[in-house]
Amino acid sequence: MKIAVLPGDGIGTEIVAEAVKVLDALDLNLEMESALVGGAAFDAHGHPLPESTLKLAKEADAILFGAVGDWKYDKLDRPLRPEQAILGLRKSLGLFANFRPAICYEQLVGASSLKPELVAGLDILIIRELTGDIYFGQPRGKRTAVDGHFPGAEEAFDTMRYSKPEIERIARVAFDAARKRNKKVTSVDKANVLETFQFWKDVVTEVHKDYPDVELQHMYVDNAAMQLVKAPKSFDVIVTGNMFGDILSDEASMLTGSIGMLPSASLNDRKQGLYEPSHGSAPDIAGKGIANPLATILSAAMMLRFSLGQEAAADRIEDAVKKVLAQGLRTPDIYSEGTTKVSTREMGDAVVKAL
Amino acid sequence: MKIAVLPGDGIGTEIVAEAVKVLDALDLNLEMESALVGGAAFDAHGHPLPESTLKLAKEADAILFGAVGDWKYDKLDRPLRPEQAILGLRKSLGLFANFRPAICYEQLVGASSLKPELVAGLDILIIRELTGDIYFGQPRGKRTAVDGHFPGAEEAFDTMRYSKPEIERIARVAFDAARKRNKKVTSVDKANVLETFQFWKDVVTEVHKDYPDVELQHMYVDNAAMQLVKAPKSFDVIVTGNMFGDILSDEASMLTGSIGMLPSASLNDRKQGLYEPSHGSAPDIAGKGIANPLATILSAAMMLRFSLGQEAAADRIEDAVKKVLAQGLRTPDIYSEGTTKVSTREMGDAVVKAL
Ligand SMILES: CC(C)[C@H](C(=O)O)[C@@H](O)C(=O)O
Ligand SMILES: CC(C)[C@H](C(=O)O)[C@@H](O)C(=O)O
Repeated sequence: MKIAVLPGDGIGTEIVAEAVKVLDALDLNLEMESALVGGAAFDAHGHPLPESTLKLAKEADAILFGAVGDWKYDKLDRPLRPEQAILGLRKSLGLFANFRPAICYEQLVGASSLKPELVAGLDILIIRELTGDIYFGQPRGKRTAVDGHFPGAEEAFDTMRYSKPEIERIARVAFDAARKRNKKVTSVDKANVLETFQFWKDVVTEVHKDYPDVELQHMYVDNAAMQLVKAPKSFDVIVTGNMFGDILSDEASMLTGSIGMLPSASLNDRKQGLYEPSHGSAPDIAGKGIANPLATILSAAMMLRFSLGQEAAADRIEDAVKKVLAQGLRTPDIYSEGTTKVSTREMGDAVVKAL
Repeated sequence: MKIAVLPGDGIGTEIVAEAVKVLDALDLNLEMESALVGGAAFDAHGHPLPESTLKLAKEADAILFGAVGDWKYDKLDRPLRPEQAILGLRKSLGLFANFRPAICYEQLVGASSLKPELVAGLDILIIRELTGDIYFGQPRGKRTAVDGHFPGAEEAFDTMRYSKPEIERIARVAFDAARKRNKKVTSVDKANVLETFQFWKDVVTEVHKDYPDVELQHMYVDNAAMQLVKAPKSFDVIVTGNMFGDILSDEASMLTGSIGMLPSASLNDRKQGLYEPSHGSAPDIAGKGIANPLATILSAAMMLRFSLGQEAAADRIEDAVKKVLAQGLRTPDIYSEGTTKVSTREMGDAVVKAL
C-alpha cells in the first residue's frame, strides 16, 4: 500500500508529520513517499503541482495532504497559485466525491459559536461533488457583453454545468453513505433559479428510486445556509454540487467550533483518495508548533478506512483521539480553562501513546 | 407619491395589511394601489406577474411587497411559479441593489442560535447585486456534453457573468453605504476559482480608489460563510454578487434569530425600489394571524427613507417598533417567557399607537 505524502505550505508540514508518526506507529507496512506541493513546490520547481508530484499521487493508493497557500503567493498569476495544486489533483485523479463530516465532539461543545443544546451530539456528513460544476465548466474568461444590462461592456463569465452521470454517481455515494447512518439525505439545489440545479434535483429524485429505505429531502441552498444555523442536527447527509458544497461545508464545519478537528476525504471511483484536514494552511501560526494535528490524524484514519481497507487500524486512531480529548489535552485552538495546553508534537505523541 | 402594494401569497396579505395600516396612520398623502402577484396572481390571471401588475409596479415610486410562494405551485413549470414574479420585477425595473440589514435587536438576543456575546449589538448590512450573475446569464439550458467527464451525456448548464459597469455601480452603492456607517466594506468573491469573481475583485479594487476613507477587505465566499458564524460583528458592509448574496444574506439574517424582524430594499438607479421582509411566505402559518408584521413594517420605513424622501416618517416607524419591543410585545416567532404574546393585528395596532 503506497501513500503519497504531500505536506504543502504553512502548518501543513507540522501537522502531516504528526499524522505520519501515528501511521508509522501502527506498523502496517505502509510505503510512504513525500513530495512538494503548493507554494513550496512553486518555490522549488516553479509550479504548484509539478509533474513528479502528480505522478507520485497518481501511482499511490492514497494521498495524505496537508494544506496549501500563503499570502506571499497572492500576486502570482492564477495558474501558478498554490490552490491550483488541489484543483489539479482533484481533476487529474477524478476525485469527485468529497466527504466532509461536521462533528461536534462532546468535550468541545463549548468552543462552538452556537448554543450548546444546538450542537451537542452534532454529526452531519456533507458530500460535495468535487470535479464538476462551475469549477471546471467551459467556456470561461473575458469577453464583450452582447446581452445583459450593458451590451458592449467588458465582462467576465464562467459556465456552471452538470451532466447526468456526474449527478447520478454522487447521488449514489450519498444514498449509500446515508444507509450506514440515519438514512436521510438532503439534496441542496437552487432549482428555482438554475437550469443546472433543476436537472440536479430531477436526477437525484430519479436515483432515489433505488433507495426506498432512505428518506430524500430537497432544499434550496439559501434555506440550507439558514437551517444549518437554526437546527444543524436536523440534517444527516447533505449532498450538493461543488460550489454550494464549498460554502456549506465550511459553514457547517465552523458551527462545530473546532474546525481543527475535522478531517476530509476526496475519492474517485477506484477508491483512490486524497485525505486532508478541513482547515487551511494558517500561515499566521506556521512554525510555531501550536497547530492542531488532530484533523490530519483523523484524515489518516479516513484514509485507512476508505482507501486502504484497514478498518481496524482506522478505529484505533479514532479511539486514540477520543482518549486524548478525554485526557484533557488541547492545542491552543480548542483550549479552554481546566484543560491542558499542548503543542502540535505533544498532541501527536499523545495519540501514539493512546493507540 | 405612488406606492404599488403587492401582498402576494401565504402570510403576505396579513403582514402587508399591517404595514399599510402604519403608513396610513402617518397621514403622508400616499397613493396606494394594490395588485395580485405570485401564486395569487397565477390563480386569478394564469401568470405570477400579470401585465397589469407589472405596469402598476413600473409606474409607482415604490413597491411594498409581501411574499410569494406556496407548496401547491411546486409542480408548475418554472416560468409560472410564484418566485418568477420577484425575478421578473427585479429584472424589469432594474432593481440591482439589494439592501439586507442583519440586525440583532437588544431584546431579542436570546432568540439567536449564537451565543449572546457574539450577536449582541450585531448590525451588518449585506449589499447583494440583484440583476446580474448566474441568475440571468445566457446561455442556459440543456445540451449534450462536449467536454467534461462524460462527453455525449445529457447535461444542464447556466452562465455566470458580470460586466464592468454592473460591478462598478454596486461597488459604489456599498462604499457610499459604508461611509454612513463604520467605513468598512468586505467584498466577497471566489477569485481563486472563478473568472467572474477575479474580475469582480479587480473592479471593486479599482472603484475603491475613489473611497480612500473606507477600508476594503476581500474575502472568499467559503471563508465569509465561516466568519459570519465565528465573528459576525467583525463585518460592517458586505458586498457580493447575486448568487453568493442569496446564500450569505440568508445565513446572516438567521444568525440574528429573528428573521421576522428584518426588512429589505431593492433599488434601481432612479431610487425606485421594492421593499419586502427578508422572510418568506410561510404558507404553514398563513391565515392564523400569528405572523410577525414587523419586518414588513420596517420595510415600509426603508421605503419612506430610500424612495420617498420621508426620512422623518421613517424614523418615526423605526422608533415605534423599538417602543413596542420595549413594551414586551411579541408575536409567537420571537416570544420568550416574561413577554406578552400578541397577534399580527395586535402588533400592527401597537406600532400605530406608538407612532
Ligand atoms: C482552495 C479552493 C480552490 C478550494 C475550493 O474552493 O474547492 C477550497 O476552498 C476547498 O474547499 O478545498
Ligand atoms: C425566490 C428566489 C428566486 C429568491 C432568490 O434566489 O433571489 C429568494 O431566495 C430571495 O433571496 O429573494
